[in-house]
Amino acid sequence: MKGSPFKSRISVLRRKLSSSLQDKSGAAWIIQPENRRYLSGFKAEDMQFTELSCSLLIDNTRLILITDSRYATAALEESPDFEVHALQRGLVQELPQLVESLGLRYLLFEEDYLTWGLHNRLTKKLEQLSPHVRLKPLNGPVEEMRARKDALEIKALEISASQICEILDEVIAGLKPGMTERQVAWKIDKLAHEAGAERLSFPSIVASGPNSALPHAVPTDRKLKKKEPIILDLGVRMNGYCSDITRTIFLGAPDPDFKKIYNIVRRAQLAALEQLRPGIVTTHLDGVARQVISDAGFGDFFGHALGHGVGLATHENPRLGPQDPVKLEKGMVVTVEPGIYIPGKGGVRLEETVVVESGGPRILTGNNMFYDF
Amino acid sequence: MKGSPFKSRISVLRRKLSSSLQDKSGAAWIIQPENRRYLSGFKAEDMQFTELSCSLLIDNTRLILITDSRYATAALEESPDFEVHALQRGLVQELPQLVESLGLRYLLFEEDYLTWGLHNRLTKKLEQLSPHVRLKPLNGPVEEMRARKDALEIKALEISASQICEILDEVIAGLKPGMTERQVAWKIDKLAHEAGAERLSFPSIVASGPNSALPHAVPTDRKLKKKEPIILDLGVRMNGYCSDITRTIFLGAPDPDFKKIYNIVRRAQLAALEQLRPGIVTTHLDGVARQVISDAGFGDFFGHALGHGVGLATHENPRLGPQDPVKLEKGMVVTVEPGIYIPGKGGVRLEETVVVESGGPRILTGNNMFYDF
Repeated sequence: MKGSPFKSRISVLRRKLSSSLQDKSGAAWIIQPENRRYLSGFKAEDMQFTELSCSLLIDNTRLILITDSRYATAALEESPDFEVHALQRGLVQELPQLVESLGLRYLLFEEDYLTWGLHNRLTKKLEQLSPHVRLKPLNGPVEEMRARKDALEIKALEISASQICEILDEVIAGLKPGMTERQVAWKIDKLAHEAGAERLSFPSIVASGPNSALPHAVPTDRKLKKKEPIILDLGVRMNGYCSDITRTIFLGAPDPDFKKIYNIVRRAQLAALEQLRPGIVTTHLDGVARQVISDAGFGDFFGHALGHGVGLATHENPRLGPQDPVKLEKGMVVTVEPGIYIPGKGGVRLEETVVVESGGPRILTGNNMFYDF
Repeated sequence: MKGSPFKSRISVLRRKLSSSLQDKSGAAWIIQPENRRYLSGFKAEDMQFTELSCSLLIDNTRLILITDSRYATAALEESPDFEVHALQRGLVQELPQLVESLGLRYLLFEEDYLTWGLHNRLTKKLEQLSPHVRLKPLNGPVEEMRARKDALEIKALEISASQICEILDEVIAGLKPGMTERQVAWKIDKLAHEAGAERLSFPSIVASGPNSALPHAVPTDRKLKKKEPIILDLGVRMNGYCSDITRTIFLGAPDPDFKKIYNIVRRAQLAALEQLRPGIVTTHLDGVARQVISDAGFGDFFGHALGHGVGLATHENPRLGPQDPVKLEKGMVVTVEPGIYIPGKGGVRLEETVVVESGGPRILTGNNMFYDF
């Protein structure tokens, strides 16, 4: 697998976990779908949350991909570094013996993905079948690695972002009063399909008029009208990597209230982007944007966080919110998306996805669909 | 909320949990998305697994929907039976005090949805802020209720199934050699959109030739060819309820091997349907179909379970597999989907969704796209 990124990622993970993995006594058990793909290349998502399409066992010398007959052929193709083990009687039944047969003493599980119930059933089964093996929680080592993107990942994120910008340009060019939100959302679906996207990063938000006051609006049959805000929040997943962009569009000049709100949101965004660089703390950045909005008297109308990391998942580390300070590092890719939402009336959100670089943020979603009111 | 199904469902849940809820000392904390919708009508799915768009607190007298500013307006509209509580500082920060202020002593959590990590953080926070409150696991009471559908749900499943049959008819009528799997999958997307579906039940499977040997194939740019098996496995979600159907289609008569395999799969399906009625045990039914396939010499090539319940989720209780016997009951809705998959060559799967009724199975996905080789 020359040129594949997986071996070096696995080396980093092994180093991070070296105290638990040493002497072959422990293995990381990776079940989170994006973490699996990051470390092995295995692409299948889970049909439902409690139905794992695969999981990985990684110890100091061995790489094992655990799946079942439905995915075994795909696993052999997509994850050639891994030995494929196809379950026949389910995880809880077979995992204890597999772990025992490998001579392991510790199984490190992802605490933010394994359910309490499955942990409980596995613990009981281990006590019964493999009393030497213990479960120990892992607190996000792969998520932490994924927060800093390598060159291959940044390239993939550039392609995904540039594709969504093209799609957004075409969608905005075609907006007309009388179109419904659902029609616009469907056009995004269509263009994403034509562009060869794996899928959308998330269900597109097309929210017009009062619906734009709902940060997570679902497209309806409401018709677009002149002068009202139309929030378009969309992304595609290409080769695993997600894009995420938001613009607020008006068909015809809005009334002065929305011009004012728009300008405040844009100023909040620019203020945050101005300070975004390696070493800056996420909570500080959130505060910078929040301050602009609350100084303008709209502090109560910006309820969500300023942004989030983007990569294999649409939402990942680091989070840019008022809590949980984290220092930004070179190579992180994050969104900056302040908004103001006036219930019953409407809202404005503007979102860029940027790479954290020494000289400041490099904007990946840079199209120029901003108003200069 | 006259005529709404939510009040009676909540009564059933309260009765099931009466020993824990009595004297107002306990509350069920419902976080699983389909369970939330089933009990409250709240529609928003979760953006990602670890990002709950809402959760419900249900005790003997109170109904509280916990969300945040992004979903609060939607919650007020969709769940009028519930008092809406909008979090400002996140669940772990605020839930302990909310629970304490309600005078609760037990919080019953869904063990197959709450992660070990969140359980751990909540336990610590409770010890610190509300030492009288304990977390106790709930083992699927709502999933158990959802397994038996009420009249409203069966109506919704009929509509969803009838819609997917129409879509499938149109897709099959348009199949031509040279079309790619992705093109066919896209046509399903388009027809589902035109039918007003909320979304697909799951990403459509369009698997031709050797790809049809992968039970969970992802559509590729492979072109359909004459005489090869083409597995189409698809569903739509309408008004919350999922449909699920599979047919295997040949463009031009297949060679004798595939005729033989097709006939075996169809016989296995009919044998299971023949015995499907209230009182029959799931593992027995799985065995009936499996026996037909293994008697014909293909036992090693049917790796997955015979079927699963369908409702608000595509996969739900009861499971029809070789393990975990459950007695079927009137009003359950399940799939019957045997398959034979020959690696490198191709496969056949046939799937019906049926209502369990006293007189036998009532087939919801009854179109007649079966071959009589």
